[in-house]
Amino acid sequence: MMLEEIRSPEDLKALDPAQFPALAEEIRQFLIEKVSEHGGHLASNLGVVELTMALHLALNLPEDKIVWDVGHQSYTHKLLSGRREDFESLREYGGMSGFPKRRESEFDSFDTGHSSTSISAGLGLVEARDRLHEDYTVVSVIGDGALSGGMAYEALNNASRLKSNFIIILNDNHMSISESTGGFSKYLSKIRVGSGYNNLKRDVSRGLSKVPGVGEPLVENIVRAKMALKQFMVPGMFFENLDITYVGPMDGHNIPEMVRILEEAKKFERPILIHVKTKKGKGYIPAERYPVKFHGVGPFCIETGKSVEEKKGISYTEAFSHTICRLAEKDDKIVAVTAAMPEGTGLKKFAALYPDRLFDVGIAEEHAVTFAAGMAAGGLKPVVAVYSSFLQRAYDQMLHDVCLQKLPVVFAIDRAGLVGCDGETHQGIFDLSYLRSMPGMAVFAPMNKYELRNGLEFGIQAGVPFAVRYPRGTAYSGLKEYQDPIELGKSEVIYRGGEIALLSVGSMMETAVQVHGKLKESGISATLINVRFVKPMDKELLDDLAKTHGCLVTMEENVICGGYGEAVSSYIHERGYGAKVLKAAVPDTFVEHGPVDILKRDLGLDADSIFQRIKNEYIRKES
Amino acid sequence: MMLEEIRSPEDLKALDPAQFPALAEEIRQFLIEKVSEHGGHLASNLGVVELTMALHLALNLPEDKIVWDVGHQSYTHKLLSGRREDFESLREYGGMSGFPKRRESEFDSFDTGHSSTSISAGLGLVEARDRLHEDYTVVSVIGDGALSGGMAYEALNNASRLKSNFIIILNDNHMSISESTGGFSKYLSKIRVGSGYNNLKRDVSRGLSKVPGVGEPLVENIVRAKMALKQFMVPGMFFENLDITYVGPMDGHNIPEMVRILEEAKKFERPILIHVKTKKGKGYIPAERYPVKFHGVGPFCIETGKSVEEKKGISYTEAFSHTICRLAEKDDKIVAVTAAMPEGTGLKKFAALYPDRLFDVGIAEEHAVTFAAGMAAGGLKPVVAVYSSFLQRAYDQMLHDVCLQKLPVVFAIDRAGLVGCDGETHQGIFDLSYLRSMPGMAVFAPMNKYELRNGLEFGIQAGVPFAVRYPRGTAYSGLKEYQDPIELGKSEVIYRGGEIALLSVGSMMETAVQVHGKLKESGISATLINVRFVKPMDKELLDDLAKTHGCLVTMEENVICGGYGEAVSSYIHERGYGAKVLKAAVPDTFVEHGPVDILKRDLGLDADSIFQRIKNEYIRKES
Repeated sequence: MMLEEIRSPEDLKALDPAQFPALAEEIRQFLIEKVSEHGGHLASNLGVVELTMALHLALNLPEDKIVWDVGHQSYTHKLLSGRREDFESLREYGGMSGFPKRRESEFDSFDTGHSSTSISAGLGLVEARDRLHEDYTVVSVIGDGALSGGMAYEALNNASRLKSNFIIILNDNHMSISESTGGFSKYLSKIRVGSGYNNLKRDVSRGLSKVPGVGEPLVENIVRAKMALKQFMVPGMFFENLDITYVGPMDGHNIPEMVRILEEAKKFERPILIHVKTKKGKGYIPAERYPVKFHGVGPFCIETGKSVEEKKGISYTEAFSHTICRLAEKDDKIVAVTAAMPEGTGLKKFAALYPDRLFDVGIAEEHAVTFAAGMAAGGLKPVVAVYSSFLQRAYDQMLHDVCLQKLPVVFAIDRAGLVGCDGETHQGIFDLSYLRSMPGMAVFAPMNKYELRNGLEFGIQAGVPFAVRYPRGTAYSGLKEYQDPIELGKSEVIYRGGEIALLSVGSMMETAVQVHGKLKESGISATLINVRFVKPMDKELLDDLAKTHGCLVTMEENVICGGYGEAVSSYIHERGYGAKVLKAAVPDTFVEHGPVDILKRDLGLDADSIFQRIKNEYIRKES
Repeated sequence: MMLEEIRSPEDLKALDPAQFPALAEEIRQFLIEKVSEHGGHLASNLGVVELTMALHLALNLPEDKIVWDVGHQSYTHKLLSGRREDFESLREYGGMSGFPKRRESEFDSFDTGHSSTSISAGLGLVEARDRLHEDYTVVSVIGDGALSGGMAYEALNNASRLKSNFIIILNDNHMSISESTGGFSKYLSKIRVGSGYNNLKRDVSRGLSKVPGVGEPLVENIVRAKMALKQFMVPGMFFENLDITYVGPMDGHNIPEMVRILEEAKKFERPILIHVKTKKGKGYIPAERYPVKFHGVGPFCIETGKSVEEKKGISYTEAFSHTICRLAEKDDKIVAVTAAMPEGTGLKKFAALYPDRLFDVGIAEEHAVTFAAGMAAGGLKPVVAVYSSFLQRAYDQMLHDVCLQKLPVVFAIDRAGLVGCDGETHQGIFDLSYLRSMPGMAVFAPMNKYELRNGLEFGIQAGVPFAVRYPRGTAYSGLKEYQDPIELGKSEVIYRGGEIALLSVGSMMETAVQVHGKLKESGISATLINVRFVKPMDKELLDDLAKTHGCLVTMEENVICGGYGEAVSSYIHERGYGAKVLKAAVPDTFVEHGPVDILKRDLGLDADSIFQRIKNEYIRKES
């Protein structure tokens, strides 16, 4: 094993270039093995093995800086920068993150997790370098999918003014998570299959001969002229028009060629974009064939590519998927919008059934929301299916383009709450706070799979801005018999008891039921409330509970600041009720990766912790 | 006056085209007069008089839909759609908004206020039209400045897939609010001065002759080839590369030509972008000469162009301006970032003194924040100066790229609180809520101009993510003698009293002092607290106050949901203190335009209202 000997870029540079292919093969085997054990991002990492090696060879790390866009493709980088042993704890609790982390290694120069930030961050590093008269190279590595995100374009637009070196690598695998969409993607495809410069003169001449004699600037004439002109495919003119020098496309699996170009690019006193073609999943047949499935995976069997995780019942995502398909059948005004996540959000089936009613806008959450607002203004019933943490990108658009105009857009917010192994950047623990501050937004959290179905149906018919938020993973299927008709702003009483009332938001119900049981075992019959609506808040019920109970316990998978617990506590205080309010919520902190059950325990959100708190902070004091 | 006869597009269409120039002149005089009386957006509106007339002539309004990007250029549209009389109340309390409002007129098809949303919203309307088998034309009108915003690019990228009609008008006045920046702007300039199609063949041939013989794809060679190729300026290839048909550039003050192109464009079964050149401020010399000053203005004298508003003392913006210049002199690591707002945020002087340390990134808040994070990671001390409502665009970037990495970026948040005449989309009433939910963000609100100075200096040295938020308008200059050294997370005691404690956040201090006086007149000596830090919250002080006072009154220019009052109230309840908490905050609603003092009165945020509430809800109950 060569790999065991490589603890730094120096070790890599000491190898004979003839050994590179064998090392790349070792790296691939290592990654496949580790990801099959721990789960993680596979396809994207297999695609950039040679590119990463080339970067480590051509750069002087860690003085030079690589900013990995999104960051889930940084495994080879971690492996080659002395973190081989840490793969034993990849994405595990207390172990190595699946994303770049500055606190993890000096080789990680900027934390990433969400898409399209790398050019902005890289440009910032470049300006700092120049201003502080330092001398290092900055490279941002961005995928073609991430270039559909508007902020990448904002950054390119700004990079053009730079008068010093900045290398942007466009890692083009013709994929974001699922297949890339839109005009830009089509443009890149043309370059990929194009002939590069070799046939440039011939193509230009051919195109030129078709330009019609120029008369009046009428639309038809212009269109014809453009059609002709487009035939001479000059690679990269899109970037050149933004004043970014473009080089490529080139083979992203050819290490010597990439090293040579990188060496030259380092000397260039302007921003330069190197367009590199790579194959997602390269070297592992199942991942090459199903790159979307092997984008992010749980543990799997290497031979078959099949997941080894037990299927425990349907997920919230699947419940959403079934429901929206069923509702769409009855109402053809229902359309769905996703931002590059048709699989992850469960819209794949919808897309198959209603291809012209599914809009995958690429990694473009801002556009997704305002586009949906436009459809709602035009009379449709759009459902925007998006992950909680990604929806953070569209805060302003939800506020202005949806809430301000009271447009009936439904937000199906998946991965809301703790998500586990992806960690800090993917935890959906802020949405209750940011949604609650928006006037006119209804915020609904279903307690189980049945209520996700009922809530989604209710939301689509409600005619107001409506958010349904639910977590990753297996849906709770208990309490099936509790299906009171949903009413805007009303909570549901599950059990009536005395003294202590548990107010459970959405997915906390499974835990709340356990707490309820523990209290019962201690001889305390508690009231159990299914909050349903974090907003509008059911004040009538709160009045009732506060008058008849000594303690209200709020439970939510959201940060405490601005969450449901604060709202309840503040209301109870305002009304002058004596009832105590215990707030079980994520503390005011970012939450690292790890299994959800362990994270919950650490955060005091598991049944034991909540039960203990009730005992310590209420029962003992009262008795 | 022809203008008085025009109450609908039908009246306009009935005119003899020979009368159009005279009408345009009347419209300009009308707009100049009304804006000189009421204040408002002038330069942008003077620029689009003919363009708006052409749209009203070529379209079938209100069945057809115009989406005005940003919307401050919609005055002529309002004027020609039956709202002439409403200009008497332009931007006044209860009067006509300066932005498109669906509830105001059926001619307004989508509310706007923030930049770069019009293509997304327009595309949504188009999809709704097609899906519902309706037959109307949708036109999005977007400025060149707004095209620097990433979401406009996201929308263009998605529009390319459309197989039906959608008209995008690029209103190119070579300006956003201040001068446009970046590669795209440079690109448009080239088109503006270019020869269009007339010299196309000649230019292409000339360019072709300079293409070097194509050998190895080495950087130098490629750069030379590109330089040669760029010489044949094909207008609009940037858009064509995104698969959007481009027409132009054309004279945006030539009505017949625009009507002719629009008529043709309506028949085109694809998205089409019409590039129109206009002159900002056209027809009013002061506005042509100083378009930035006349972007948004208060009442002014038509003859001289000078403001008729009394200058009442320095504004918070000016206090910021002085301070950052002074600090930057001592510390050359301080750099400033603005998103197309060097004037509005007070960075003009900084730009003049330190041109290489000011980064105007265009209308690109997402990039601005992550770019600043990159500079902080590289060792600089960036200050991002931005309006509160615009910062909403960068929620995710503040959370992930700044707070998660604990990077020392300072946010100088101007227009935080009620802003007055711009209304709903510009009120800075959400920032305390969204900032407070971010782990590790320090949130500071200065009570007067001295404290803005001290707080900014403290923030820049603090070494953590740090937000300083302050409102529009004249800075409070009272309480100069209270300048206790700032300490992270500590509030300042102004007066010690008993029974009632007033907790004033930032700019509410002027009001709080009045309330304090009114209480004194009633024989009540109240404690007055300058909160300073909404986060971290000064729990020690709250403990002390709650133990020694019967009532705490929180005051903030922010929505109640997730704001400071809720945090205090929730904390006091959690600790079991008996003290009552009265929360003076903006209720859970959007706030329309009007003078700040009237809005405050309506919202219960003026001294009288707060004093009455204290009397009604506390004093009377206790006595």
